[in-house]
Amino acid sequence: MYIASERALKECVVLDGDAVAQVENAFGELQRGNATVPPILMIPVPEQHGEVDVKTAYIPGLEYFAVKVASGFFTNRQLGLPSASGLMLLISTQTGFPEAVLLDNGYLTQVRTGAAGAVAARYLAPERTETVGIIGSGTQARFQLRALSLVRKLDRVLVYSAYDEGGLRAYVEEMQSELGVTVEAVDTPEQVVRSSSVVVSTTPAREPVIKAEWLHPGLHITAMGSDTEEKQELEAECLAKADLVVSDLKTQGFRLGELRSAKAAGVLDESSPVVQLGELVLGEHPGRSSQEQITICDLTGVGVQDTAIALEAYRRVVARGTASLIDE
Amino acid sequence: MYIASERALKECVVLDGDAVAQVENAFGELQRGNATVPPILMIPVPEQHGEVDVKTAYIPGLEYFAVKVASGFFTNRQLGLPSASGLMLLISTQTGFPEAVLLDNGYLTQVRTGAAGAVAARYLAPERTETVGIIGSGTQARFQLRALSLVRKLDRVLVYSAYDEGGLRAYVEEMQSELGVTVEAVDTPEQVVRSSSVVVSTTPAREPVIKAEWLHPGLHITAMGSDTEEKQELEAECLAKADLVVSDLKTQGFRLGELRSAKAAGVLDESSPVVQLGELVLGEHPGRSSQEQITICDLTGVGVQDTAIALEAYRRVVARGTASLIDE
Repeated sequence: MYIASERALKECVVLDGDAVAQVENAFGELQRGNATVPPILMIPVPEQHGEVDVKTAYIPGLEYFAVKVASGFFTNRQLGLPSASGLMLLISTQTGFPEAVLLDNGYLTQVRTGAAGAVAARYLAPERTETVGIIGSGTQARFQLRALSLVRKLDRVLVYSAYDEGGLRAYVEEMQSELGVTVEAVDTPEQVVRSSSVVVSTTPAREPVIKAEWLHPGLHITAMGSDTEEKQELEAECLAKADLVVSDLKTQGFRLGELRSAKAAGVLDESSPVVQLGELVLGEHPGRSSQEQITICDLTGVGVQDTAIALEAYRRVVARGTASLIDE
Repeated sequence: MYIASERALKECVVLDGDAVAQVENAFGELQRGNATVPPILMIPVPEQHGEVDVKTAYIPGLEYFAVKVASGFFTNRQLGLPSASGLMLLISTQTGFPEAVLLDNGYLTQVRTGAAGAVAARYLAPERTETVGIIGSGTQARFQLRALSLVRKLDRVLVYSAYDEGGLRAYVEEMQSELGVTVEAVDTPEQVVRSSSVVVSTTPAREPVIKAEWLHPGLHITAMGSDTEEKQELEAECLAKADLVVSDLKTQGFRLGELRSAKAAGVLDESSPVVQLGELVLGEHPGRSSQEQITICDLTGVGVQDTAIALEAYRRVVARGTASLIDE
């Protein structure tokens, strides 16, 4: 069995075209009805304001599938430790044998979440995207901007973050130097939304950060923050104003995403014409069909993304010889 | 993080008093309502007649809890490979960090299942157990006999197996030499049940192996085989004839165990006076209260057993220095 360290994984796996292609393909398989995605197994650990989640998806035809064990313990911060940790197991689809343990501590989840943002932008962002906006300045704010840079030419980036001014400064400097584009911090989310043709919101907000009145023709928004029943980044009215609403997985979106809060507000429900990301991937739906449309994509994170990225990571660390083969 | 190989685990962990004590304690915690036992996450892989199950249980107060990933792929036999494989992860209850990977390929499940048999026999077998009977001659038939030898003095063992005469002969020789008791193979399950004061059935039977008319005063039966909706070892009428019926976890027994088939036959239901194993452990119920009672214990396997045995195994391999500390 192979073991790969977080360092080895970070050396081999970055958000690039191959990673996006694997995740895109996985959304296609999900849409074809080929993937088995059991409900998330959740173990609450209330004493530490913590939770361990197990996500998985079996995709026939692939050599392995992933079982991801992801922890989030909020009291860790008081101990000076990161709140997120965890790993992915790769299981052979031929024998059921465990083949690899990827000790990524959430890194691969960051990459596959970024990759989903790239897939969404490929089909939904307007062709010309001079200014793009990012809400938030954390790790996903970085990955989502990298994702946009893979599928569109960027001239200028506006970023807003409600917290952590130091983190915002670091974000501006890092991303400017990494991507060679102008990155400007602005004071309000309104400035970001009104001035951008693509906006990605990457916050754990529990109250909407983006107001419907700021939406303008030609805007695409990817909201990747909400993945629990408490979170919401978009005013419900945003989804009513959109010409096209897309979800990574509708059943999950109506439970955990912006679809949930919009449904609670009576703006849409399961019978509304919400399109799945996989429909765009398979060409069953054209995605954006005019430069004037307002489009929104709600991402909650699906097990097929974990299987796709784990498989890609496994291939890369084995090819590079940086996975350890261990004694069983 | 620590990694322990199957060999290292087998060297350190055997079914002994400490293993039984840990599993017994876990049933007590389950009964106190302290344990969180989420429903099993199941990933069917129909192309290989396979399935991967994830079981877990969080028990506050313990330093770690286990997430067990267990595969059973029946087409493996055609490849000359074992059908069962898998591993256990230990997760810190303080930080959520993964602490150890135990590459046991189902070995620890065998030990913890044996340990539950010992707990059941401790409270339910008559004090004097000159003759005990085992139905089946596989791995659990061995562990269950070891379990009985830990809690009762055995003089004579009768064993019946419907299949695999060679395996039965090996069973007789191995167990006789290991435990120093007389072990006799007999031709029918009826002989086993009628002549024994304790019987453990360890088969994957889908039709009852034990008939109610064979039951006699002073008999205890532990049925550990049924753990799916298709399996059944005891005629439903056995449970009606018993003075005391015990289950490792009633909700699970009514879904997967002998309780399920007895309920389907109309013999008992959720309102019947079925006792949980943890009630015996905590002294909330006395267990067997006369040498004439007929008692039955239905075991389906509970996540708390996995957490208990994984923790015990981790302590032992670390103390012995046979776990590898790997680079994260």
